[in-house]
Amino acid sequence: MTLRLDFSNMFTAAEDAPGTVGRALVPGDWSAAAAAFGAAFDAVARAHAAGTLGFLDLPGDTALAAQTTTFAASTRGRFGDVVVLGIGGSALGPIALRTALRPSGWNALSETTRAGWPRLHVLDNVDPETIDALLGRLDLARTLFVVTSKSGGTAETMAQFLIARERVRAAVGSGVDSHAHFVFVTDPEKGALRALARSHGVPALDVPANVGGRFSVLTPVGMLPAALIGIDIGAILAGAGAMVRRCDSRDPGRNPAGAFATLQWLADTLAGKHVQVLMPYADSLRDFAAWFVQLWAESLGKARPDGRHVGPTPLAALGATDQHSQVQLFMEGPADKTITFLAVGERTTDVEIPRAPEPIPELNYLGGHTLGELIGIEQRATAGALGRRGRPNMTLHVPRVDAGAIGELIMLLELATAYAGSLYGVNAFDQPGVELGKQFAYAMLGREDASAARAEWERLPAPDARWSV
Amino acid sequence: MTLRLDFSNMFTAAEDAPGTVGRALVPGDWSAAAAAFGAAFDAVARAHAAGTLGFLDLPGDTALAAQTTTFAASTRGRFGDVVVLGIGGSALGPIALRTALRPSGWNALSETTRAGWPRLHVLDNVDPETIDALLGRLDLARTLFVVTSKSGGTAETMAQFLIARERVRAAVGSGVDSHAHFVFVTDPEKGALRALARSHGVPALDVPANVGGRFSVLTPVGMLPAALIGIDIGAILAGAGAMVRRCDSRDPGRNPAGAFATLQWLADTLAGKHVQVLMPYADSLRDFAAWFVQLWAESLGKARPDGRHVGPTPLAALGATDQHSQVQLFMEGPADKTITFLAVGERTTDVEIPRAPEPIPELNYLGGHTLGELIGIEQRATAGALGRRGRPNMTLHVPRVDAGAIGELIMLLELATAYAGSLYGVNAFDQPGVELGKQFAYAMLGREDASAARAEWERLPAPDARWSV
Repeated sequence: MTLRLDFSNMFTAAEDAPGTVGRALVPGDWSAAAAAFGAAFDAVARAHAAGTLGFLDLPGDTALAAQTTTFAASTRGRFGDVVVLGIGGSALGPIALRTALRPSGWNALSETTRAGWPRLHVLDNVDPETIDALLGRLDLARTLFVVTSKSGGTAETMAQFLIARERVRAAVGSGVDSHAHFVFVTDPEKGALRALARSHGVPALDVPANVGGRFSVLTPVGMLPAALIGIDIGAILAGAGAMVRRCDSRDPGRNPAGAFATLQWLADTLAGKHVQVLMPYADSLRDFAAWFVQLWAESLGKARPDGRHVGPTPLAALGATDQHSQVQLFMEGPADKTITFLAVGERTTDVEIPRAPEPIPELNYLGGHTLGELIGIEQRATAGALGRRGRPNMTLHVPRVDAGAIGELIMLLELATAYAGSLYGVNAFDQPGVELGKQFAYAMLGREDASAARAEWERLPAPDARWSV
Repeated sequence: MTLRLDFSNMFTAAEDAPGTVGRALVPGDWSAAAAAFGAAFDAVARAHAAGTLGFLDLPGDTALAAQTTTFAASTRGRFGDVVVLGIGGSALGPIALRTALRPSGWNALSETTRAGWPRLHVLDNVDPETIDALLGRLDLARTLFVVTSKSGGTAETMAQFLIARERVRAAVGSGVDSHAHFVFVTDPEKGALRALARSHGVPALDVPANVGGRFSVLTPVGMLPAALIGIDIGAILAGAGAMVRRCDSRDPGRNPAGAFATLQWLADTLAGKHVQVLMPYADSLRDFAAWFVQLWAESLGKARPDGRHVGPTPLAALGATDQHSQVQLFMEGPADKTITFLAVGERTTDVEIPRAPEPIPELNYLGGHTLGELIGIEQRATAGALGRRGRPNMTLHVPRVDAGAIGELIMLLELATAYAGSLYGVNAFDQPGVELGKQFAYAMLGREDASAARAEWERLPAPDARWSV
């Protein structure tokens, strides 16, 4: 049992909606794209051979996986709470793994129900109310902080670290004891975290230099928090490895990541589908969609060398919930979207809807079905209705949400992102656009090397009182 | 102290980015829109006078507020957990209010820290894993279920209700006792929930007939869950009432809701800004952005009477977190977006970033600042950088996240939605696009009155094996 992408509903020409932006995709577009995808496949293979796409090697990196399993085993039984300090790729992966692969409401379960595995909290912002509340309610003597920053200098993460360290010292005393509550995940050589690890003897796990933050979930960035709460990271890595092998084809019709990337690129550039929705029909995959949003947005939203600004806008939705929120827009608003459903086959548990003993005719149809049937039927009904209305959509069938499938899904979407970068003609592995905002912040915070940014900041027009209400 | 919308950065002509979709807005567009807004203002006033815009009357509806406060007072001390069964507008409002107006991590706090107020859970989906886990870990003898459905027949909510009632009966015995664990929020006259309330003596609070689901947060839909966990609903309603009065102007420059609606409509229709981001810089407002997404998407994403498909795509983001996720796309991707920041002035608590005792030159700039300063600076830096790059944005200044401000914010955005409906020429208060998907689901579930949908469903093209990988 493996993932399957069904894209029959991407070709909706016969029923295309009036008011369509751009046009509908037709099977001929797909056939004609084989050469473009082949070139993208070759470009990714060349980049991999040149050593720049480290994420593809992670499933086979047993030494790196052993860093995680060895450290995680050494902590077993010592901590009731694990707190990840991280932002962006350092946070989204751990959150997605916890939600997908641990029972629902993990942090609210008793220690017994958790079989002694700790709770997992992720501080992914610098909101003082959140941080103060979390640190205030944890038993810091039984808390482990995983400080994750590839560069070792991320402002938000380092601010969190300085605060957490002070609180831990206040709780358990300074010196060696306090550092036993920290583990770093960072570059193998460079940066402030690596230097601190060396000077204080803090354990530090590696993010390989050729793996960027948003592609790092299969490094200790994601694997360490997962292993610490009892997730089988070997199965995740095995699933990811299987997907790498499955995608070893220049034919997009035989390469799931290639098909996904090519279809989304065609839909955006030929057919005006600029908004690309990922809509799982399972609460367990809700946070996985947020992980995908970063991957797709930050990798593809770029200025090309020729000055053109490209990149689809990914949107996370959740079924059936968002049938009561965003689906009206998807169905009848501008035809500028694709929707990719994540449909789950077998569920860990199911619940039967009881027949009402009272005569309530309008509810008779529900009794005797299960919730699993209901949510599955709603997914198919929504996909069918979108197709009927000329709205292109595809369904990624997930036989069961388990560690192997999550590994497959991660690698499918990461590899699709690499292909899409090549199809769009952008570097999918940098993020130059956020630099100016960072520099402006450094200038306001008084960082010494930010004088150029300070000068640029001071030249910005002041708020105009006419434009305020 | 009240909300203030600063839209200086919406007019970015001088620095407009190459590759812009459409064009930049200029002050002349804004001046020229006064007449269009005046007409929208008049249309909303007429509809209100005709009795169709009940949400505007909610701040002054003391009888309705008393339904909530009376019922909530009657439950004080009896329940440790409150569970809302609802979806869409029935769920998003309660979630947003809990996150905004109760301390961070409310459900994880001890009963003492919560001053005896219950936890609040919202089941907003029909995922069997979530529902089974929640019902399995609660003490049902001390749990109150708030079942919210305007129509009284929402499939997902009624399925949840049938399941929860069976579990409660198993826990506390059937008969009167079990119904003491339920309260309904529904139409004053019609529907299955109202009928059940009458036949079983279940308390039931009203959603006025002229208030639609996504505009219902100021009815018992939002106010009852809020009051049950100790939120001051009087202050919310007072804030909302103040905003209604503040928006009593045909001049969009003096009407905050009018300015927001007009600017977003201009940006979408004149300048190609089809994606409209709401980005609070406060964890407490994260779920408020999700509430806005439903409001804006479901109200404006419509087929117009002339067949044109319109409606901006709202996108929820969170600062500073999404600076490490989506901001790269906002900054350098297609210039098809507006960003509205929610900037918080005073915070409930702040945390100082300690100076590192070690020599870590690259972190020196952080020590001595507070997290509140850091997150505020990051918001201004991001807004400034977007403006510098020709990306239109505005900032809604929230002096402090309290009940009054949340009431203002709710009413500002609801009223803006009503104005925008008129500007776009659509009915902002229906959702016809979701009907086909519902009918297809009824057909698959075997509902007797769905035979037409069943026939249409069976005519849909079958999945094509060629389009699968």
